[in-house]
Amino acid sequence: MSRSFRHFLSLREIPREDLDALCLLALSLKRREAVARLPGRVLGMLFFNPSVRTRASFESAMARLGGASIALAAGRDTWNFEHREGIAMDGATQEHVKELAPVLSRYCDVLGVRKSELVTTSATTAEVSGSWDDLKRDGFLRALARYATVPVINLESNADHPCQGLADRMTLLERCPGPDGPRGVKYVLTWAWHTKSLPMATPNSQLEAAASLGMDVTLLCPEGWELDPEVTAAARASAEAAGGGLRVTHDRDAALAGARFLCAKEWGSTRYYGRFDEERRDKERLREAWRVDGRWMARTAGASFMHCLPVRRGVVVADDVLDSPASIVVDQAENRMWAQMALLASLLGEPG
Amino acid sequence: MSRSFRHFLSLREIPREDLDALCLLALSLKRREAVARLPGRVLGMLFFNPSVRTRASFESAMARLGGASIALAAGRDTWNFEHREGIAMDGATQEHVKELAPVLSRYCDVLGVRKSELVTTSATTAEVSGSWDDLKRDGFLRALARYATVPVINLESNADHPCQGLADRMTLLERCPGPDGPRGVKYVLTWAWHTKSLPMATPNSQLEAAASLGMDVTLLCPEGWELDPEVTAAARASAEAAGGGLRVTHDRDAALAGARFLCAKEWGSTRYYGRFDEERRDKERLREAWRVDGRWMARTAGASFMHCLPVRRGVVVADDVLDSPASIVVDQAENRMWAQMALLASLLGEPG
Amino acid sequence: MSRSFRHFLSLREIPREDLDALCLLALSLKRREAVARLPGRVLGMLFFNPSVRTRASFESAMARLGGASIALAAGRDTWNFEHREGIAMDGATQEHVKELAPVLSRYCDVLGVRKSELVTTSATTAEVSGSWDDLKRDGFLRALARYATVPVINLESNADHPCQGLADRMTLLERCPGPDGPRGVKYVLTWAWHTKSLPMATPNSQLEAAASLGMDVTLLCPEGWELDPEVTAAARASAEAAGGGLRVTHDRDAALAGARFLCAKEWGSTRYYGRFDEERRDKERLREAWRVDGRWMARTAGASFMHCLPVRRGVVVADDVLDSPASIVVDQAENRMWAQMALLASLLGEPG
Repeated sequence: MSRSFRHFLSLREIPREDLDALCLLALSLKRREAVARLPGRVLGMLFFNPSVRTRASFESAMARLGGASIALAAGRDTWNFEHREGIAMDGATQEHVKELAPVLSRYCDVLGVRKSELVTTSATTAEVSGSWDDLKRDGFLRALARYATVPVINLESNADHPCQGLADRMTLLERCPGPDGPRGVKYVLTWAWHTKSLPMATPNSQLEAAASLGMDVTLLCPEGWELDPEVTAAARASAEAAGGGLRVTHDRDAALAGARFLCAKEWGSTRYYGRFDEERRDKERLREAWRVDGRWMARTAGASFMHCLPVRRGVVVADDVLDSPASIVVDQAENRMWAQMALLASLLGEPG
Repeated sequence: MSRSFRHFLSLREIPREDLDALCLLALSLKRREAVARLPGRVLGMLFFNPSVRTRASFESAMARLGGASIALAAGRDTWNFEHREGIAMDGATQEHVKELAPVLSRYCDVLGVRKSELVTTSATTAEVSGSWDDLKRDGFLRALARYATVPVINLESNADHPCQGLADRMTLLERCPGPDGPRGVKYVLTWAWHTKSLPMATPNSQLEAAASLGMDVTLLCPEGWELDPEVTAAARASAEAAGGGLRVTHDRDAALAGARFLCAKEWGSTRYYGRFDEERRDKERLREAWRVDGRWMARTAGASFMHCLPVRRGVVVADDVLDSPASIVVDQAENRMWAQMALLASLLGEPG
Repeated sequence: MSRSFRHFLSLREIPREDLDALCLLALSLKRREAVARLPGRVLGMLFFNPSVRTRASFESAMARLGGASIALAAGRDTWNFEHREGIAMDGATQEHVKELAPVLSRYCDVLGVRKSELVTTSATTAEVSGSWDDLKRDGFLRALARYATVPVINLESNADHPCQGLADRMTLLERCPGPDGPRGVKYVLTWAWHTKSLPMATPNSQLEAAASLGMDVTLLCPEGWELDPEVTAAARASAEAAGGGLRVTHDRDAALAGARFLCAKEWGSTRYYGRFDEERRDKERLREAWRVDGRWMARTAGASFMHCLPVRRGVVVADDVLDSPASIVVDQAENRMWAQMALLASLLGEPG
């Protein structure tokens, strides 16, 4: 497939035609109607944060394509990296992206990086190094892409998780096989309670994924937990351009009525960003009401349940939902691999 | 080869015919009389504990088969995992095996997991999270196998290390090339002193390995360091069914007399399980007498010396044994790779 | 290519003819005039220290050759290793090189190890376990090579970083394409200031690399920061044998005059080895004068700038040098991969 994008950093930067082509190729690969091969090609990945699905699905994708993967745990396997321009590196960082990016580009055919301030395994939310307005610029990722001479894939940054978005988009297409596909079908992305303040990257990308399909998109959340207005505005524009629409609501009953897909995700508030203890105290009152359970599902129009995983059972989502036939979370996770195979084949494949 | 088992969790659950077939295939692969190929197939491994042989031999086995491996350090590379049913995950764990197992099954063709409470690199024995009767059920491993949709291999759990057992079994067959093979040959598994209380997984599997070959099996240990009675009873039944026998003794001279194989292993007592400081104080008196050295070997019938490795030289076993021609520990370790190639080929190969 | 060496531990031990053949093969591979294949072959690597270029370039090299890599983080993924002879291992180490080396040799076709006392990501220099005269013997590496039954590659030890040296040597050949090649061309290796006391391994190997090409080699450093006299003497002998020469100087102007290559490297003094706080206090006075910047370059004869990376921008080298067209550090880093492909092909390839 031809493509107009160089890097894969945010769904908001990829033309809809390219997203459509990637999803169609992914579905063909999954059905074994298409074959892609990348023998001898190498994917290099830098993980600043833990990962299960992202790492395993990319490594499996490259292996199935006949290529290889190099996965480095940044700061454990490697040096500490710097991306700020023009500073004297006399502190904790040893290597600048201005060297790192072009050097890895000589060893690898494509690079991936996961760098998020809030993706951790700790029991409390990590301290952050800046304001949301600063961190959402994804300085390290953008610097890596600027200095790399091969394509760069965002494996989750502060602002975006486009591979999750792409897999969700493929899943929605797969589940709407009719002639109109997902266009106009009601998709609800709901906030769910979590003890920590988790990143907005995934819901940002999920919202764009459904919007770019022209779905009837609803973002459901408590007051104060809306996503970044820029993200919501971009998704609204995408939805409308694709024949759909987007609304933000705090009214659960209205949101769930008619929903065919309910995607749950826990995230922190931009309002409280960096003041996570305060956020925790404030949102304690939301704990019971914003756990997704069977009563939520009963109000939908037989919705399929989606979640990016990992999910804290009994906290974010009740077992009765995750263990029900309505849950498609494992299929959704599987599609990470197929979507990424399509992405890798598109980024690295011979023009044909 | 056809096989009757789905997972490879404990030698005690694998029919003798399957163990025989696996060992014969392993020996043929080692002699280059058989070839196995698994191109494009993916082994996913989760390591909760350190590893040298297990990880390197599995990665090498998959590479030689034309496939690929994904090795994840649980809790460092990944989330923290939960396996208990029906709990609200508001603590230190982020992902449940009910999601982890089926998701990894979509990316990988076979899964391996090493999860042992006592396998560490620390200088003292780890604290354990439960009683031996509880931990020997291998809750995480069993849950992973229950929810996986691909075969699961135990890379060492609390109760079993079946890959070590399989390699030892292959080694015993390799070293007894006569028409009767190892049947009736005297095999001694002896306890050896170690500063820490090490897991029983390996001796449990080693005992069963020799027993299932119909060998004349002796378990030698100080009073109080017998293996779990269930394990010993199962091995006795296996030995008798295969034309051999099993005895447990504290009498070193009687044990060593006539021995053709002496396998040393250090392990903690079930009696003291969880009270490791007490065990250490009690066993201090055993330190000198239970270090295997050349005087032990001299009482055997020219026995080959076996150990699973790693081994603390000069503490568990004296250099004069490890550096002597009687030691077959490196061959034994090499056989890990061939035995596991046979296992992988059997689990993933085309029926033929 | 035929070769006379078994292991690749130090450039000082490899005959010049072999170094020439390796570099020529590397250049041919880079120009796609030669092809090397090692299908199904396995490289096992042990990293006691962080790495970017070494690990990624070796993994990429093996993947491009059709083989596979196993990378283990020593002490995190594995046991703690012992290499001293004849001791009772009742301390922090669990496995002896006498077992480790032959066992890994059964799983892998070639082994690599990075073990340096001073390569860390910490903000201060690590404490060392011995004197320089002791540590420069590279006890672990040499023991691993002694007990391995396959070739061993030094991925950086206390005394040497021969893969960096080989890549630099290839780079110098590549940049001097005339009939005489680099012979007689002026090459300056200069000390540069760094907050920590970094290892001498890299400059030791870089000096030998240029010397073995018969270049006109100058080692420039402040008084007290000369390299180990044995290393300098060996390089002088190599240079003279190859038609070049070597001088050590503290006079920057004289050193830079006529230089065609300026390679910067920061390292600790043998004089202060182990007393790093003292060294730091003493060298504070050198901070400004020994940062390589455009004024240095202006005094050369249009030199190309080299550095092994990682480099602390603005501390060791000014941005105006690194960002100038004279900098060839990325090409130099790329050549790690090609040089190592040649090395692997030479060590593992079929005799032909």
